[in-house]
Amino acid sequence: MTKPGKFIVVEGLEGAGKSSAIATIRQWLQQQNVQVVCTREPGGTPLAEKLRNLVKQVDNDEQLAPQTELLLMYAARVQLLTNVIRPALNRGDWVLADRHDMSSRAYQGGGRQLDEQLINNLRSTVLGNTRPDLTLYLDIDPAVGLSRAAARGELDRIEQEQLAFFVRTRQKYLQIAATEPDIVSLDASQPLEIVQQNIINALQQHFKGQADG
Amino acid sequence: MTKPGKFIVVEGLEGAGKSSAIATIRQWLQQQNVQVVCTREPGGTPLAEKLRNLVKQVDNDEQLAPQTELLLMYAARVQLLTNVIRPALNRGDWVLADRHDMSSRAYQGGGRQLDEQLINNLRSTVLGNTRPDLTLYLDIDPAVGLSRAAARGELDRIEQEQLAFFVRTRQKYLQIAATEPDIVSLDASQPLEIVQQNIINALQQHFKGQADG
Repeated sequence: MTKPGKFIVVEGLEGAGKSSAIATIRQWLQQQNVQVVCTREPGGTPLAEKLRNLVKQVDNDEQLAPQTELLLMYAARVQLLTNVIRPALNRGDWVLADRHDMSSRAYQGGGRQLDEQLINNLRSTVLGNTRPDLTLYLDIDPAVGLSRAAARGELDRIEQEQLAFFVRTRQKYLQIAATEPDIVSLDASQPLEIVQQNIINALQQHFKGQADG
Repeated sequence: MTKPGKFIVVEGLEGAGKSSAIATIRQWLQQQNVQVVCTREPGGTPLAEKLRNLVKQVDNDEQLAPQTELLLMYAARVQLLTNVIRPALNRGDWVLADRHDMSSRAYQGGGRQLDEQLINNLRSTVLGNTRPDLTLYLDIDPAVGLSRAAARGELDRIEQEQLAFFVRTRQKYLQIAATEPDIVSLDASQPLEIVQQNIINALQQHFKGQADG
C-alpha cells in the first residue's frame, strides 16, 4: 500500500510572493524524491478554470453578487478536490496548492463579510476529511502587496477592490493563522532569500523524516 | 409606493408540460393587466446562463461532482435573485419562473441524495425572505415524462440519468408538495385542456382580487 501523500497550501494576499514560495517548495519536494501535483484555486480542472474566469473577469455583463462569488469558489473547490487533490493524495503523491480553503475564509468571510455559518457549513461538506497538512501563510501589508501586484500588470475584478477590503482580508488571515496549528505564518516583507530560508525551515520542521519516499 | 409583485413558480420533471403551463399562466397574467418578468433556472442572467451551460452540457472534459452541480445551481440562483427577481418584485412586477428552488430540493436532494443540511443552509442564506407566492407542481410519471422529453430531441446531461434517479426526484417533489401550503400539485398526465383549466383555477383561487393592477 502506498503511503498517502501530504497536502501543502500556500496562502496570502496579492503580491505576497506566493509564486516564488511555490517554486521554492516544489524544488525542495523534488529533492525529497516525492511526486508533486501542483494546483491553483480557483481552478485546476477544465471546469474549475472556466469558473475562475467567470469570477475574475472585470468586464462582466452584470454585477457578481458576493454570495455567487462564494458559491462559485466552493463549486470550483469541490470539483478540484474530487477530481484532482483526493486522487493524487490517494496515489501517494504530494499536493502543492496555490490557495485553498483559507482564501475563501479570508476573502469572502473577512473581506466580503459573508455569513460565517454558511461558510462553515460549506467547508465541512465540501472539504470532508481532506485538510492541508501544512499551510504557509505569507503575511504582507496590503498596501505593499497591492503595489507589487499592480506593478505586474492589470488587476482582475477582485484585485480592484478598495484597500479596506484587503485590510479585512488580512485581519481574517492572521486571526485564522493564530488559532490553527497546521498554519505557519511567515513575514513576507523580508528579503526574498530570508523568506525562502524560512519556508524551507518550516517544511523541514513539519515533515521531519516524512518526505523520504 | 408600488404594491410588491407576486412570485409564481412552475415545477416538474422533464416532459411534465412546464412550457405549456407557463404560456397559459403568462396569458392569464397579461389579462389581469400586470407586468410579467419571465425567468428560467438555472439561468436567467448572462452569468447564470453560462453556469446553465456548464451544468447541462454532456461533453464535459471531466465528470461533474454532485456537490459541484448543487453549488452551481445555487450560485446561478443567487445571481438571478439578486439581479432579476428581487428588483422585479420591488418594482411591483410579477415574476413567472420556469423552475426555482424546489428543483434543487427534488433533483439534488431527492435524485442525487445530497446532504439535506447543506441544502437547507444554502436555502436559508441564498433565498432569504424571497419565497414563491405560488408554486404549481406538474406531477407526471417519470417514464411518461422522459419519453415525451426524448421525443423533443437530444437529452442533456441531467436528462440522461437513469429512471431510478427521476423516481427519487418525483418522490421528493411529492413529499415537499404534500407539506407546504403554497405549492399546488396538478396531475400533468391529463389532457392538455384539463391541465390548463386546473392551472387557471389554481391562479384564480390563490390570487383572488390581488392581480387587479
